[in-house]
Amino acid sequence: MDIQLDRTSRIPIYLQILNRFREMIISGAMPEGALLPPERQLAQELGLNRSTVLSAYRELKKEGLVEARVGRGTTVLPLPSQERSDTENATLSWRHIFRTDTARSQSPLLRDLLALSERKDVIPMSLGLPAPELLPVDLFQQIQTDLARELGPTLLQHSPTEGVTELRETLCDLAAERGISCDPTETLILSGSQQGLDLASRVFIEPGDTVIVEEPTFFAALQTFNAHQARLIGVPCDQDGMRTDLLAEILERRHPKFIYTLPTFQNPSGSVMSLTRRKELLQLAYRYQVPIIEDDPYCDLRYEGDSVPSLKSLDQRGLVLYLSTMSKVLFPGLRVGWLLAPREVIRRFTLVKQSMDLHCNTPGQWVINTMLRDGHYQTHLNKVRRAYACRRDIMADALRKDAPSGFEWTKPKGGFYFWCRLPDEVERSQLLAESAAAGVSFLPGWPCFVDDPGCTYLRLNFSFAGKRAVETGVARLLEALHHSCRKQSISAREAGGTPPIV
Amino acid sequence: MDIQLDRTSRIPIYLQILNRFREMIISGAMPEGALLPPERQLAQELGLNRSTVLSAYRELKKEGLVEARVGRGTTVLPLPSQERSDTENATLSWRHIFRTDTARSQSPLLRDLLALSERKDVIPMSLGLPAPELLPVDLFQQIQTDLARELGPTLLQHSPTEGVTELRETLCDLAAERGISCDPTETLILSGSQQGLDLASRVFIEPGDTVIVEEPTFFAALQTFNAHQARLIGVPCDQDGMRTDLLAEILERRHPKFIYTLPTFQNPSGSVMSLTRRKELLQLAYRYQVPIIEDDPYCDLRYEGDSVPSLKSLDQRGLVLYLSTMSKVLFPGLRVGWLLAPREVIRRFTLVKQSMDLHCNTPGQWVINTMLRDGHYQTHLNKVRRAYACRRDIMADALRKDAPSGFEWTKPKGGFYFWCRLPDEVERSQLLAESAAAGVSFLPGWPCFVDDPGCTYLRLNFSFAGKRAVETGVARLLEALHHSCRKQSISAREAGGTPPIV
Repeated sequence: MDIQLDRTSRIPIYLQILNRFREMIISGAMPEGALLPPERQLAQELGLNRSTVLSAYRELKKEGLVEARVGRGTTVLPLPSQERSDTENATLSWRHIFRTDTARSQSPLLRDLLALSERKDVIPMSLGLPAPELLPVDLFQQIQTDLARELGPTLLQHSPTEGVTELRETLCDLAAERGISCDPTETLILSGSQQGLDLASRVFIEPGDTVIVEEPTFFAALQTFNAHQARLIGVPCDQDGMRTDLLAEILERRHPKFIYTLPTFQNPSGSVMSLTRRKELLQLAYRYQVPIIEDDPYCDLRYEGDSVPSLKSLDQRGLVLYLSTMSKVLFPGLRVGWLLAPREVIRRFTLVKQSMDLHCNTPGQWVINTMLRDGHYQTHLNKVRRAYACRRDIMADALRKDAPSGFEWTKPKGGFYFWCRLPDEVERSQLLAESAAAGVSFLPGWPCFVDDPGCTYLRLNFSFAGKRAVETGVARLLEALHHSCRKQSISAREAGGTPPIV
Repeated sequence: MDIQLDRTSRIPIYLQILNRFREMIISGAMPEGALLPPERQLAQELGLNRSTVLSAYRELKKEGLVEARVGRGTTVLPLPSQERSDTENATLSWRHIFRTDTARSQSPLLRDLLALSERKDVIPMSLGLPAPELLPVDLFQQIQTDLARELGPTLLQHSPTEGVTELRETLCDLAAERGISCDPTETLILSGSQQGLDLASRVFIEPGDTVIVEEPTFFAALQTFNAHQARLIGVPCDQDGMRTDLLAEILERRHPKFIYTLPTFQNPSGSVMSLTRRKELLQLAYRYQVPIIEDDPYCDLRYEGDSVPSLKSLDQRGLVLYLSTMSKVLFPGLRVGWLLAPREVIRRFTLVKQSMDLHCNTPGQWVINTMLRDGHYQTHLNKVRRAYACRRDIMADALRKDAPSGFEWTKPKGGFYFWCRLPDEVERSQLLAESAAAGVSFLPGWPCFVDDPGCTYLRLNFSFAGKRAVETGVARLLEALHHSCRKQSISAREAGGTPPIV
């Protein structure tokens, strides 16, 4: 097998193997049905650890280029385009049957970042996950055991589409702590707040409708609104949040379906909308009769300063839909988020949710209910707040010490992220490649904008990796940054091409 | 408080109270803000148990007519129409902002049937749930505990959109037992198979596209396809399943996006499509290049006879999408279903699912994986098969003994349901009301048809209620039936109106 490795390259060996196979498959040098060498044999041939070859093969499988079957080894699959032309009569042309808008703007970025976060050699600063080692797994287990005893089969049967009644009641208490007055009929339990974004899109957006977002904003929200064929208008933000002075004219001209905002510890910028701006935003929404979707995953994760009232708590006219989630403080894997909204909105969302998935996982809702009701949420919150504040300070120190001139950032007062603007001479795609090679990931800024901002941003997470990893991660990133300035990009490319970010 | 009760009526007391309050609120006799008497006081006044009044108030709350707040009692809410006209400037007219198609054909029937199943005085034969007392709750608990120890935080963190890899592998083994050969990249874990119906609709159906279904068929599938604005064409079924002889002409004329079928222990009819028909269906699908969605929740719940191969296992050209679920044998509350489909379909569905809810509940997937992998699924299956076969026989005996002439039904060889055709003189809405009053629920047949079939069907479930309850339930139903013949409907109406089915 003709695989030349460059052991001096910054490109990891497994990526070099992956790239070589991909080339051979796409060029046709390895046609459909061709057998790849057994992993063990190739590892021996190249003098590598078997796990390195395994990693390359795994990525090939993920890309749908090869398949492995027990007893048959790893073989090359037909390329999608060949599948269409060669076997027209035998198989369907799925691509022609799919709705075209289901491919629209749904880049696999999020999925790839999740996959990258599983690679042991990469310090993940790309995602928005809580620290795994702080998750109270034993407590979860204890509560689940108690619930099974107390509830029996009810714990595992169907539950109402709107959510388990007890949890809906408990969430009203949590809302009250956030200054929001509501009753259980104004709540809806969601399979993560992501489902709230999807539901809002389904209920409100007709193709071509205008939706207003902050710029930058949560990239998965942009993907979801785009998938429903919204026309997105971005309103710039500064350190006080959305520029409400620019909003009136847009509302006047465009009659949007809703305004989407993350006023508190915004994702990705970390900014907090000032109280004045919040009031201005509400007044504008009232005047133009536009609903606001307030996405508030991070409000409890404040590390300094006083909290600012949520839009929902300031809203006098029932025009704010308030989304929040358990995934940033407790267990993202349980998929428990919720919506607070006027009763009429809850009823409509419930009808649509019912046809989507009937209801959310039942035991997950009961566990969250107990954790909130019995004070475990608050106890855990105090613990993670201390830990994350510390990680944030470490990241700030590391950036302050070593970031090059032109690298701009602000230290957030809460939430999960540093938002950084890079010097103009940095080559974006090169930085992604160099960082993956150096063993660190980040979220590039461009998916957070409606239109390309023209300069380079990145979002760094400090909650997921441990204290030392945060320090090392920043060091690796700054090293990769150093290699990614435009003047150096030509020589870097010669060293072996740009590896894909997977 | 002017509430006249008729203690001789077949209408339950709580329903009489509910109806009276509803009338007063809708007529304006009790305007917005009016205070209902405290539950305890009204109960005393009427000489009733407090829980009876509580039930009525709870239903009023569910209907959005009143609200209860601690310290303020129960007050009348503004009616939706008043909300619009009286306070135009203060609140949004949500109904004008919602997409109109989100209300399309999504009757709250399923939700109401779920609610009805929670009423202690009603024997639920309306739903498709496994027997709660047979659910292996202790085993669930033990497996969850072991998993928490083994996996730690991984059990509660995010997992891939496609599903936990180990479960995808294990499902390939289950598929193999069903004669289907596939690999993990051809699987997608769903939040119940309901999510598969929704995803298929999103990926395939443009408004106005034709979709072919059996008649009768699974009513929630009709709701979902309707919500996506499909034009539905029903193909009649007989005891051998879908009438393939009628299909070719429809395929020729209508170019449908897909054919939806439940070939094995069909819901609601219980019929099994014959092998000949299965092969004919596949040939037609090949000739007209139409994908088939095979929904197969019940195949493992066979009580007699030999199994017939699934369409997926017979499919030579990768044209069948195979949906199944854990909700009929194990735990519906975990929301674990899955799809087997060509890789290209899995990839597209995954992109869309990602923007819907990121991924399914993680611990639920792990528990199902262990139950399948370690043989618990099979053990449990053997147990419930015996129990359900017994309940089926009891239902058959009870119907055989007492059903009036003109009441037609067949004993199913598997699945959850008896499908019955009623004598022509039965008044449908009257039967629903009489049954609820008699303390038994069923699924009326009409939501299972694209167009009203003109005669009256009902679906009776025998899996959920216990042996004795099945017997009592049938007796109550036949009694209600007796009261619902047309000749008696006028006098029945005079006794107190038709109570709503809630």
